[in-house]
Amino acid sequence: MKLRVGILGATGMVGQRFIEQLNDHPWFSVEALLASKRSAGSRYSDVAKWYLESRIPSDIAEMTVEGMDPRIADGLDIVFSAIPSDIAKEVEGGFAEHVPVFSNTSTYRMEEDIPLMIPEVNPDHFKLVEAQREKRGWNGFIVTNPNCTTIGFIIPLKPILDSFGVSWVHVSTMQALSGAGYAGVPSMAILDNVIPFIKNEEEKVEVEALKLLGKLRQNRIEFADFYVFSSCHRVMVRDGHTEAVFVQTDEDFELEDIKKALSSFRGEPQRLGLPSAPENPVIVMEEEDRPQPVLDRGLGGGMSVSVGRIRKKRERLLKFVCLSHNTVRGAAGASVLNAELARARKLI
Amino acid sequence: MKLRVGILGATGMVGQRFIEQLNDHPWFSVEALLASKRSAGSRYSDVAKWYLESRIPSDIAEMTVEGMDPRIADGLDIVFSAIPSDIAKEVEGGFAEHVPVFSNTSTYRMEEDIPLMIPEVNPDHFKLVEAQREKRGWNGFIVTNPNCTTIGFIIPLKPILDSFGVSWVHVSTMQALSGAGYAGVPSMAILDNVIPFIKNEEEKVEVEALKLLGKLRQNRIEFADFYVFSSCHRVMVRDGHTEAVFVQTDEDFELEDIKKALSSFRGEPQRLGLPSAPENPVIVMEEEDRPQPVLDRGLGGGMSVSVGRIRKKRERLLKFVCLSHNTVRGAAGASVLNAELARARKLI
Amino acid sequence: MKLRVGILGATGMVGQRFIEQLNDHPWFSVEALLASKRSAGSRYSDVAKWYLESRIPSDIAEMTVEGMDPRIADGLDIVFSAIPSDIAKEVEGGFAEHVPVFSNTSTYRMEEDIPLMIPEVNPDHFKLVEAQREKRGWNGFIVTNPNCTTIGFIIPLKPILDSFGVSWVHVSTMQALSGAGYAGVPSMAILDNVIPFIKNEEEKVEVEALKLLGKLRQNRIEFADFYVFSSCHRVMVRDGHTEAVFVQTDEDFELEDIKKALSSFRGEPQRLGLPSAPENPVIVMEEEDRPQPVLDRGLGGGMSVSVGRIRKKRERLLKFVCLSHNTVRGAAGASVLNAELARARKLI
Amino acid sequence: MKLRVGILGATGMVGQRFIEQLNDHPWFSVEALLASKRSAGSRYSDVAKWYLESRIPSDIAEMTVEGMDPRIADGLDIVFSAIPSDIAKEVEGGFAEHVPVFSNTSTYRMEEDIPLMIPEVNPDHFKLVEAQREKRGWNGFIVTNPNCTTIGFIIPLKPILDSFGVSWVHVSTMQALSGAGYAGVPSMAILDNVIPFIKNEEEKVEVEALKLLGKLRQNRIEFADFYVFSSCHRVMVRDGHTEAVFVQTDEDFELEDIKKALSSFRGEPQRLGLPSAPENPVIVMEEEDRPQPVLDRGLGGGMSVSVGRIRKKRERLLKFVCLSHNTVRGAAGASVLNAELARARKLI
Repeated sequence: MKLRVGILGATGMVGQRFIEQLNDHPWFSVEALLASKRSAGSRYSDVAKWYLESRIPSDIAEMTVEGMDPRIADGLDIVFSAIPSDIAKEVEGGFAEHVPVFSNTSTYRMEEDIPLMIPEVNPDHFKLVEAQREKRGWNGFIVTNPNCTTIGFIIPLKPILDSFGVSWVHVSTMQALSGAGYAGVPSMAILDNVIPFIKNEEEKVEVEALKLLGKLRQNRIEFADFYVFSSCHRVMVRDGHTEAVFVQTDEDFELEDIKKALSSFRGEPQRLGLPSAPENPVIVMEEEDRPQPVLDRGLGGGMSVSVGRIRKKRERLLKFVCLSHNTVRGAAGASVLNAELARARKLI
Repeated sequence: MKLRVGILGATGMVGQRFIEQLNDHPWFSVEALLASKRSAGSRYSDVAKWYLESRIPSDIAEMTVEGMDPRIADGLDIVFSAIPSDIAKEVEGGFAEHVPVFSNTSTYRMEEDIPLMIPEVNPDHFKLVEAQREKRGWNGFIVTNPNCTTIGFIIPLKPILDSFGVSWVHVSTMQALSGAGYAGVPSMAILDNVIPFIKNEEEKVEVEALKLLGKLRQNRIEFADFYVFSSCHRVMVRDGHTEAVFVQTDEDFELEDIKKALSSFRGEPQRLGLPSAPENPVIVMEEEDRPQPVLDRGLGGGMSVSVGRIRKKRERLLKFVCLSHNTVRGAAGASVLNAELARARKLI
Repeated sequence: MKLRVGILGATGMVGQRFIEQLNDHPWFSVEALLASKRSAGSRYSDVAKWYLESRIPSDIAEMTVEGMDPRIADGLDIVFSAIPSDIAKEVEGGFAEHVPVFSNTSTYRMEEDIPLMIPEVNPDHFKLVEAQREKRGWNGFIVTNPNCTTIGFIIPLKPILDSFGVSWVHVSTMQALSGAGYAGVPSMAILDNVIPFIKNEEEKVEVEALKLLGKLRQNRIEFADFYVFSSCHRVMVRDGHTEAVFVQTDEDFELEDIKKALSSFRGEPQRLGLPSAPENPVIVMEEEDRPQPVLDRGLGGGMSVSVGRIRKKRERLLKFVCLSHNTVRGAAGASVLNAELARARKLI
Repeated sequence: MKLRVGILGATGMVGQRFIEQLNDHPWFSVEALLASKRSAGSRYSDVAKWYLESRIPSDIAEMTVEGMDPRIADGLDIVFSAIPSDIAKEVEGGFAEHVPVFSNTSTYRMEEDIPLMIPEVNPDHFKLVEAQREKRGWNGFIVTNPNCTTIGFIIPLKPILDSFGVSWVHVSTMQALSGAGYAGVPSMAILDNVIPFIKNEEEKVEVEALKLLGKLRQNRIEFADFYVFSSCHRVMVRDGHTEAVFVQTDEDFELEDIKKALSSFRGEPQRLGLPSAPENPVIVMEEEDRPQPVLDRGLGGGMSVSVGRIRKKRERLLKFVCLSHNTVRGAAGASVLNAELARARKLI
């Protein structure tokens, strides 16, 4: 018996990625497509313009979209959410009273009792859920995944942190258009251009990183004590965030040891063999001109982070370029992997 | 009487920018278009496919291209060079025996007795010319300008260095296609993509910066003693390099003081009123989403560097984004400004 | 004394082109910037994000935007309009009660008593204005210019029609993004793509052409009696519509005669020396790979149409590719040229 | 036992598509990768930069590239060719002495005894092979497929021709970058641009169409007696040629009958169930804004042609927009389907 899944914000770009990720999923079955009142009552394929190169699954196309009414939760085992942050407080909270919610929205990420999770990085943060339920009196709970930009560099940073410690990180991003939603970036704005600004992005990146790599101590996350400084830019790329990452480690390293730490990195999803877990969370590329979005964003089904251009400038000073698929590993796939981990741990 | 000018590599992309910069120049007049044997003897407009949005000057179009024979130098007062680095050693050297050469090519940049110059930054390095002539026995000399990427961040770095000192710089670039020459980047390589590699670029950026900001001591440049670490990327932009620059200063600063130092920065070209000197070498932009290549690369006739997104993360830690026109301020315009400075100082 | 001009829809993309076209205009002076209530009362530069590569004129930047209230018309001599078609009926009509309106909006174009004009093509259609005023009781009047796509191929078609007659036209377009307005085409929609649909465009092209080339008979336009069949496509180009035009003429032709007819074509704007009139309304290009948007859209200050790839397949069967700047010759410049013609004819 | 296959020009863009199409093919097995002397002797993955989003098959990556020596043909059952046209005369001819050659190169296409084939359109032209062998004394033979642009509109034209006859065709194309080879179109040439010229393309399109739709009469192809007039343009699209096709039919039609003829069209590949045959050679799209390259080029595994925007202007006058994947249906897939047909007919 598969778990019955609902998708909040099913018509948008990340909503479509949820549908794609959950198509033929061994554990989960999409039973409810939830969207704004404007779409409720209509056939999914009539209101959701399908943006992806994959075909829309034919059974999904025929489903009727429903409004985001928490009473629907009763027939569901899990809800995934990709709704705008300004309505998430109420809607996600409403559903969480009834059912576990795995959210890609930023609203709850930084709340004290809400896990902000990447299964390969901080699976133990899941434990916050107990305190959360108790405090909030929910039958369900909320688990969030980080911003698409954060996730891209935190995954490779984790094995470096574990082996050498991290003093600080400077990250400069070249982000894909899909991160802004389908109509988020006008073509007139980005043709022959770079836009050195993404609303709230630098703030999110700099703080989420520290919670993700923080330590769980008695139902509280003690934030990591290094700092992250970021510069976020939009470029003319459909999918795939490229990030140049400068890292000062605590201890000195050999480049080969960094590469080994990255290549051999495995997390709990790999150990548990979760359905959406890539074989390699991090793929190290030795070619001088990789990773590249158009060639590498699909690696590991969009769930691997590619790392290249690894250089050492001086003692303890490292630079690499990483690439991750922002709407798969950085959004829908991230939430699905969180749910798979929860399932494997019998939390749902 | 205008000085008679020859252009080495006149048919290429930077060669065309030289022609554009020198069109109706008050001091210089283009008298010789020099290129490879393949083009020599042909009408310029027959062998040079004009790439620029401006029209090709009609008198230039009708000129006959000549081979790169140093004997031509006798009829010339100045030579500008935009030839490939692998032939520059011999060709530029050959011309320099007869006439001053202002070169955009990398070949001679790091040689001890060759000035690597940005007139706003290190005009005193011109003095190397005397020793150069003596050592090499040339009637002319060679003066070089830096790589297009270096020039973009060094100009705003200069007033910061002067006011607060610099401990290190991390720079991540998003570079325009024209930097690779007209046919340098295939469209298949860059459409929907970022390429995290430009041959030799990171090496050039990291070393040229230190010579440029070095101190002249008894006919030698003592390199600046901070370090630069760079990550260079190609993006889908025609002209204009965007660079995210993280700087650790020696002394702490207020953001407003940084902005003031940048805005009020003037160099010798401004004081002398050189024809190609922009009124403001650095333009500070307060809008949250600027600078942008498509909107700002033409500021100051392509000779101003735009700076925005200025942030302070913690004590002594600064970040900004700068934009400069890579084939104007970063190439042809840079050489022309060097020549104008030489002229104003009566060195030619 | 310059005529006092108001611009309806001053903050949008075509509104900005109006400002650019009218900057330092010898006859017209912009006195009122009119826009929706949302913008009224604000400083122009605060509400209009300036999209053009040219700088915003500094005096315009400081002006206060006003609402689109026809009472403002009393202080004005001319109004230019670039407002959405759904509000134009009332707004343009309201202003026309007081003052001549030169409109780029489609709303009134096909009304019987409204001139649809290209000064080089059908200047005599201006005479409709008298009947229009009488019928509508307006002190002012409305003169419209065609859709940006129509204008591009009608200008070169006119001398062909005059010399050889036209039986039919098949036109397939590759249209620029700016034609849809700044936010009209999401980057996700057009990156690595062609969209074979522009709302209402094929309909407009096919009917406007026949009115433009129609004959004025006793205050009525008798439509031209050939037909136009079109296929309209959006491509990844900022400005400049490229159109492949297949024409069956009535009489056979030599290619050289076609080229001569195009090159030597002059209209009333050229004879009168109107300020915005290009020297050559049509520029014939012999190079095998021209015209191209990025290189040729700016010819004649954006007011010339470039024509190339002229081929004859068989008797009476012609093909050419034409290019015109869609927001200059195809929009703001078109309206301004209409107004200049009216002024030269003492109609205003 | 699978047939042993060699690929001439295996390192290029179409060569890679051959490898992709033949990966896990039920009938064919790639045994030889043939390329220029420069690559011969090297490991495939060392000399062929893999351009496709799919991964390079690991066994192919390890193979050693061989020179294009016809003696290799002895160990092969079929050769596919994607070599430059200037060397094809000799190389393909040399191989055809020994083995059947299925070529995507233009060199032999228009020779009288060489079949130019699309299996859904003119499978009977295969019979030319007998006369070809006899005349040339070859043990093998050459079968060609058309230019990528031709194939796109000829497939939908075939059922229209069969049902209503065709008097003429005007076709205006918007072609993908990959058609020019990986380095064929510089990014500086096409960014923010359309290029209205592709060398020899219009000539090929206009003549190949008539051979393809010609009738086989006593070992000769009698060309179809309508005419094709074309205008070919390059646009900023990776893969997928979009074509606007105006057709005058011989007999009048109802739009619904055209749609039915297109949708229900099946050819011999479909009847025989050939491995690469798409279920629907033509897919009719009713959405007003389709087909689009980024969304539809992959339909039918890249082997279906999508048709939309079907309009009737007047009696017998039809317009549609078609889209086909230029390096799959228009190149490698076309050759492979030809070979499959030959195999099914026991010709190899």
